[in-house]
Amino acid sequence: MASKGSRHRNRRPKYRVGEPPGTLKTDPNALPPSLHIIAYGPESYREIEEPNLDNVADLRKQWPVVWLNIDGIGDADTLMRLGRVFDIHRLALEDLVTVHQRAKTEDYGNRLFVIVRMLESGEAAHTEQLSIFLGNGFVVTFQEHPGDCLDPLRKRIREGLGRVRTMGADYLAYCIIDTVVDAFFPYLDDLSDKLDTLEDDALSRPGPDIAARIHEAKRNLLVLRRAMAPMREALSMLLQDTHHMTDATRMYLRDCYDHSIMLLDMIESYRELVGSLLDVYLSSVSNRMNEIMKVLTLIATIFIPLSFLTGIYGMNFDPEVSPWNMPELQMRYGYPVFLGIAGAVAAFQLFMFWRHGWLSSSPAKKARVKSSDGDAAP
Amino acid sequence: MASKGSRHRNRRPKYRVGEPPGTLKTDPNALPPSLHIIAYGPESYREIEEPNLDNVADLRKQWPVVWLNIDGIGDADTLMRLGRVFDIHRLALEDLVTVHQRAKTEDYGNRLFVIVRMLESGEAAHTEQLSIFLGNGFVVTFQEHPGDCLDPLRKRIREGLGRVRTMGADYLAYCIIDTVVDAFFPYLDDLSDKLDTLEDDALSRPGPDIAARIHEAKRNLLVLRRAMAPMREALSMLLQDTHHMTDATRMYLRDCYDHSIMLLDMIESYRELVGSLLDVYLSSVSNRMNEIMKVLTLIATIFIPLSFLTGIYGMNFDPEVSPWNMPELQMRYGYPVFLGIAGAVAAFQLFMFWRHGWLSSSPAKKARVKSSDGDAAP
Amino acid sequence: MASKGSRHRNRRPKYRVGEPPGTLKTDPNALPPSLHIIAYGPESYREIEEPNLDNVADLRKQWPVVWLNIDGIGDADTLMRLGRVFDIHRLALEDLVTVHQRAKTEDYGNRLFVIVRMLESGEAAHTEQLSIFLGNGFVVTFQEHPGDCLDPLRKRIREGLGRVRTMGADYLAYCIIDTVVDAFFPYLDDLSDKLDTLEDDALSRPGPDIAARIHEAKRNLLVLRRAMAPMREALSMLLQDTHHMTDATRMYLRDCYDHSIMLLDMIESYRELVGSLLDVYLSSVSNRMNEIMKVLTLIATIFIPLSFLTGIYGMNFDPEVSPWNMPELQMRYGYPVFLGIAGAVAAFQLFMFWRHGWLSSSPAKKARVKSSDGDAAP
Amino acid sequence: MASKGSRHRNRRPKYRVGEPPGTLKTDPNALPPSLHIIAYGPESYREIEEPNLDNVADLRKQWPVVWLNIDGIGDADTLMRLGRVFDIHRLALEDLVTVHQRAKTEDYGNRLFVIVRMLESGEAAHTEQLSIFLGNGFVVTFQEHPGDCLDPLRKRIREGLGRVRTMGADYLAYCIIDTVVDAFFPYLDDLSDKLDTLEDDALSRPGPDIAARIHEAKRNLLVLRRAMAPMREALSMLLQDTHHMTDATRMYLRDCYDHSIMLLDMIESYRELVGSLLDVYLSSVSNRMNEIMKVLTLIATIFIPLSFLTGIYGMNFDPEVSPWNMPELQMRYGYPVFLGIAGAVAAFQLFMFWRHGWLSSSPAKKARVKSSDGDAAP
Amino acid sequence: MASKGSRHRNRRPKYRVGEPPGTLKTDPNALPPSLHIIAYGPESYREIEEPNLDNVADLRKQWPVVWLNIDGIGDADTLMRLGRVFDIHRLALEDLVTVHQRAKTEDYGNRLFVIVRMLESGEAAHTEQLSIFLGNGFVVTFQEHPGDCLDPLRKRIREGLGRVRTMGADYLAYCIIDTVVDAFFPYLDDLSDKLDTLEDDALSRPGPDIAARIHEAKRNLLVLRRAMAPMREALSMLLQDTHHMTDATRMYLRDCYDHSIMLLDMIESYRELVGSLLDVYLSSVSNRMNEIMKVLTLIATIFIPLSFLTGIYGMNFDPEVSPWNMPELQMRYGYPVFLGIAGAVAAFQLFMFWRHGWLSSSPAKKARVKSSDGDAAP
Repeated sequence: MASKGSRHRNRRPKYRVGEPPGTLKTDPNALPPSLHIIAYGPESYREIEEPNLDNVADLRKQWPVVWLNIDGIGDADTLMRLGRVFDIHRLALEDLVTVHQRAKTEDYGNRLFVIVRMLESGEAAHTEQLSIFLGNGFVVTFQEHPGDCLDPLRKRIREGLGRVRTMGADYLAYCIIDTVVDAFFPYLDDLSDKLDTLEDDALSRPGPDIAARIHEAKRNLLVLRRAMAPMREALSMLLQDTHHMTDATRMYLRDCYDHSIMLLDMIESYRELVGSLLDVYLSSVSNRMNEIMKVLTLIATIFIPLSFLTGIYGMNFDPEVSPWNMPELQMRYGYPVFLGIAGAVAAFQLFMFWRHGWLSSSPAKKARVKSSDGDAAP
Repeated sequence: MASKGSRHRNRRPKYRVGEPPGTLKTDPNALPPSLHIIAYGPESYREIEEPNLDNVADLRKQWPVVWLNIDGIGDADTLMRLGRVFDIHRLALEDLVTVHQRAKTEDYGNRLFVIVRMLESGEAAHTEQLSIFLGNGFVVTFQEHPGDCLDPLRKRIREGLGRVRTMGADYLAYCIIDTVVDAFFPYLDDLSDKLDTLEDDALSRPGPDIAARIHEAKRNLLVLRRAMAPMREALSMLLQDTHHMTDATRMYLRDCYDHSIMLLDMIESYRELVGSLLDVYLSSVSNRMNEIMKVLTLIATIFIPLSFLTGIYGMNFDPEVSPWNMPELQMRYGYPVFLGIAGAVAAFQLFMFWRHGWLSSSPAKKARVKSSDGDAAP
Repeated sequence: MASKGSRHRNRRPKYRVGEPPGTLKTDPNALPPSLHIIAYGPESYREIEEPNLDNVADLRKQWPVVWLNIDGIGDADTLMRLGRVFDIHRLALEDLVTVHQRAKTEDYGNRLFVIVRMLESGEAAHTEQLSIFLGNGFVVTFQEHPGDCLDPLRKRIREGLGRVRTMGADYLAYCIIDTVVDAFFPYLDDLSDKLDTLEDDALSRPGPDIAARIHEAKRNLLVLRRAMAPMREALSMLLQDTHHMTDATRMYLRDCYDHSIMLLDMIESYRELVGSLLDVYLSSVSNRMNEIMKVLTLIATIFIPLSFLTGIYGMNFDPEVSPWNMPELQMRYGYPVFLGIAGAVAAFQLFMFWRHGWLSSSPAKKARVKSSDGDAAP
Repeated sequence: MASKGSRHRNRRPKYRVGEPPGTLKTDPNALPPSLHIIAYGPESYREIEEPNLDNVADLRKQWPVVWLNIDGIGDADTLMRLGRVFDIHRLALEDLVTVHQRAKTEDYGNRLFVIVRMLESGEAAHTEQLSIFLGNGFVVTFQEHPGDCLDPLRKRIREGLGRVRTMGADYLAYCIIDTVVDAFFPYLDDLSDKLDTLEDDALSRPGPDIAARIHEAKRNLLVLRRAMAPMREALSMLLQDTHHMTDATRMYLRDCYDHSIMLLDMIESYRELVGSLLDVYLSSVSNRMNEIMKVLTLIATIFIPLSFLTGIYGMNFDPEVSPWNMPELQMRYGYPVFLGIAGAVAAFQLFMFWRHGWLSSSPAKKARVKSSDGDAAP
Repeated sequence: MASKGSRHRNRRPKYRVGEPPGTLKTDPNALPPSLHIIAYGPESYREIEEPNLDNVADLRKQWPVVWLNIDGIGDADTLMRLGRVFDIHRLALEDLVTVHQRAKTEDYGNRLFVIVRMLESGEAAHTEQLSIFLGNGFVVTFQEHPGDCLDPLRKRIREGLGRVRTMGADYLAYCIIDTVVDAFFPYLDDLSDKLDTLEDDALSRPGPDIAARIHEAKRNLLVLRRAMAPMREALSMLLQDTHHMTDATRMYLRDCYDHSIMLLDMIESYRELVGSLLDVYLSSVSNRMNEIMKVLTLIATIFIPLSFLTGIYGMNFDPEVSPWNMPELQMRYGYPVFLGIAGAVAAFQLFMFWRHGWLSSSPAKKARVKSSDGDAAP
């Protein structure tokens, strides 16, 4: 738990209070930048690890599209130099190192600045900030950590699959955003499976871990919604940007925008489903309590009066002193009659319980949802 | 349950992550396409099963309206060929095979592309994607599976009922959408019946299956709303489309749009009703628990003190050793007096319970809603 | 219950699926039409039961305003004929027989078509569809059943009260709508009384029927809201209709529109109040359970240990075998000491309970809301 | 309770159904009007009780501003005459006597008609309708009952405090509205105090009256919101009225409008706080139940097995018949060994309870919110 | 508690009811003003404590930017004089002393008036009103108490860090607002830590203090939202103010506006998380109750029937009177057989409990959320 806490602490941004705005204050725990360039045209491509930034101008002249990806944003100097080379506004650089930004699209005239949130792999929903700068013939992307969901895109560039090599930098930016958005689908797919299991468990095996799992699902859906809702807005603004985006690319962006709406739709549905699951679970718990109480009440109400009867005849009133003192004990059929009365009392109580429907064997066993092939994802 | 899970898995779209956009990647589990044409004019009609696509151009020349329906979207080649024959945009084809789209209306200039969600038969709410392309003199529809709710429409075309044969392709498209929308009414009708039953059960027989049935109803209503809400938006856009839709058809579309609003209204009402049912059920469970506890408490509080009394006189303190030791046991009327005291204690307790109103026979039996002819559907 | 179900079924519209639009399919269970005309001018009026439709043209020439009311919509032929006589669009006729429409205002050029929902008398909220056609010099109204809230209006026409006789057909239409809207007030008034009673009961006599009554109130409010919310929209559209409505009439309509907002306001307030009542009731149930448990716990925890003590001295260890075996039984003051100890244990427990505040007599009795002259209706 | 009901009944408006609109039907239970005039200019003022309406025209000529206040709206004739003297539209008069109007601003050309709701003194929130007519050089106000919050304003006029005497009738209207709005603050202030107490009680003394008090607070907040929300709208419309309101007065009105937003803000905050209090209370009740159950379980599970043990050795199997029959009773250390075993069983159970954390003394005592200086009102 | 109450009372504004608007009525408990000036230009700066207001005009001529800060608003005379010196509108002065204003931006032509709410240090969320007047070359700020979060900004001015010294008064106003907004981040950071702990506790140690802590968190979030939501609006209006704000400053303001949206996002997320925590806690309480009931039921249902058996053989029916009276007591193996039967009954019951799954050791211990590295803050 300690490691969890500390990990969280590291992740949190060091919010500057009273710092001069425009200060590029990098998080000391952030990773140092590691650069990677893919430059390509319709015919060929070239990759450079840790390129010399001085040569970037040449690359931009030689290749139609240059994609510079930076993993790690822990070094202010490198970032400032990148800012100068690619003419990136100081405020955008600052946004870039403040890693808890909402997704947004900002137009800095010659540069388009897009922040999206990229889902990290793992069971709990976590998002990483991906900052994208789109300029004339180049795209610069900044990630917090190495490792992303963009490898299939890189492969498409290398192998010349699809139309990515034949189109411009704006199409590359679209491809990156589209890949990031689509990476939410498999996670939601998994979540849907988990909710199916959770639903079965809440209905048939309502253990005390259900509430924790429901809370877990809610929290993950909260993270997803907080990531996706601003993304939709950012995509909506991107769709209206006729300055940096060609009409062809914007047609594809519209598709990506539809996906973001679909994702939000799914997230909202799952949220409602989870809320309904909690109700199901709580009523299961109540029912289980009822079952337990019924057993206790059954046993107790049958045997407590009987025990009172046995108690009476276990008393030591002296029958020899007076004929009034427990003459039953001296009767010939006292004991059998007692047993008969006790049996009759028990039978009467059982009959009353049966009439109130308390003796029906737990119907919970039978109460399985019949039409269980239903699914909230249509 | 296994079959359910696997069925679900098959149903889920294989979301492409990092795939080049515009790729026509069909689901390997999807059915192969099966084509069917109805071509008609005011005077006559002609049906062709599995038509040769090369002849479609001729058919379009001969008949005022050609309706090509395709069941199954599992073969990319056929779809691509259809796309070429009917001049369908690549992105629309892609949307068509991604079967979990929201309903939408998209204008591709010469083609109008409408996606609606068609309710499948069955107890649990499921929707199938129906993709409609409307062009000059033809309608192409794509379904996931054979079997739909459009047979009455086909019959009307064959028998020349109504005005469908005398009007254009836009009217046919309207008829298809209208039929799909209206098919939600019988399902909601059934659901309303079920909610009536559920209401009676929640009030009078609150078994543990109620929560599961309420959850089931909620999930179905969630599916319906997710299908219908975008449908209303799509219809609203269609209403504004003066390019593909004639004024006459748009007047009918307005009616269809009203129906979609009415359906959403009903869905919302049922959702609130279901929420209220859960409250009723939970309070029934609590009340039942109270009843059980009351019985237990009644029996226990009456007999536990009495048992203590019998316990006292069952003790073996030796009365011969000392006159202080349980002289009651030697008294002439010890036993009758004891019985009298025990009876008095019990009577006093019963009186106290009666005064607190705990002895009233369960009023749940009488508490039936009198005005049960009320109904949320006005 | 059977009759209830069947009554419901009859009430439900037979939704046509795949029927040609514009078909006038009347519900076979609907009543046959019964016509009634009131024609009037500033000076006089004339009433005709079951008029000959051929004479309507003459009547319209003779009288400034002709009001034709039709009770029952079960005969397609009559409706079609009425449609021809009054030049009513086919789609409007169709809406008219589909009796579960939302309130709406539709402008068919020369005819204004308004649907409102009229509250039926009875304890449960039910609304009947009233379709109003306003043309030049005439108003045609269609009701599902005979019997409505418009009799005071008819009386005003007959007796020449107010200004209705001196104004045109648009004012008559307004009067009808205004009467329908205002008829919701007495129902809400009654509901408010019932909620007052329900509130008292939930606080002081939380029986198991409360939940059912709360649910009943919720359902009625749901019906009212579903009727009134579209009515407000329809009135808002009517207010903007300068074509059929004179400025004078629209001034009165504004008042009617304000009433619809006020009604919605009241409905929402009552809904929140009912929601709060449920919370009150559920916490009453919990408190009652606590009370019951407290009594059980009190009695059980006092007497169970005492019974154990009596059990000990009821054991038959033989004191003659050994001095270790229950020497207490032979002691001179064994029994009084035992009684003393038992009393001390009981007293100690009572003291502990008193200290935890469990002995306070049920404060529920005292907890009456003091300021009970408060009311949600300001 | 009866008096409460009847009082309510009297308060309710007699909604006219089917009455001719524009009818001035006063509530027979309403008070007869009592008139009061203050006429003033920068230099002096004059007050007249029960003025002769014929002289009003003269007063209006003599004084820059004439304020006629009417307490009681129970006499239609007087109201009609006032309507004629001040040229008030019939519909406005009608609104005036229908005392459950929402606050609104209506422009009748030469007259501005404003309805506001004035908070009546008392613990439960009640509002009275104050109808204000603003014309050229005069303000007429109608109240349901004598007694209002406007006396400080009257004093300012009499003593010439502030700028009220130097400004026009629109400023007087503003002063009236501002005073009415500001009168909500002390009520909310008191409510905030009550909520503080309620919060303490819900956390530390969760008696059964808490739910009723929470419900009471909710109902009052509901009344306040229903009064204030339309008031904000009415003020917003007033702000845009450049016809009756001078720029100087509108600057002050903006301040008043800000106050109404602030009040709505506070009301919403308190509503959320009250909702949260209910959760706190319900969980307190559950915890208390847990505590009670724990005590019962502790005592019962310890002593019930022990009682069983004593029961065994209280049996009368005859040891003389056979050595198998309860030889323990004849053993030398039978009794001490029995006591030892019983003690060991009890000790073991106590140990188990301690391990499960059930023996910890009720932590509810310690669980006081530490940072209790927090307050929802910032 | 008393001190808390009184502290609250002092904090509450004395709302004037019926006071002439524009009256400068200061709270008698407010602190007397204490003035402080920093005047600066690109080259140097000068600070003056308790400046003579007559010299302010000179200072404004000498220095590009003059920042006058006033702590304490308890003296009407000083405030009026300040109002005259800086040409501040009477209504703005009045707003300034009414310390419970919502954040807002108001344009008084030559002066821009901004109210923001500044978070005070302390565990419970409290905000203080900071009123900012921006004029040509000067900024005047009013605070309720000494001590604020602006010291880092003062240091930047003194040491010439960042660009603050080189820019105008509008940039200074921006810096103040930005600092106030950013000061919310550390508080939310702490709150997030507390929610993590609360989450762990609600899942594993659901003590009765959880509800109080959840309520506390809700209340704090309520205060934060009430402070931040109007702040976002005020910033949005500020962004549109091209009159007082230069384009360069507005670019920075946009950043500040983004931060306010982010803060509101976080607050809403935490609110939902807290709501979910309450559900988790309540279900933990229910589960714990179930556990307790299970133990009680287990013990009671096993031993109560056994005790009845012992009771039977503890009865004193006289076997010598008749062979029917308890012959078992005389049997050779009576006692062992009895023990066997008792053991069998207990074993059967244990088996039944095991079959119902009631014997499984509390699974709550194992039910820890595995993926506990999830966090709602992405």
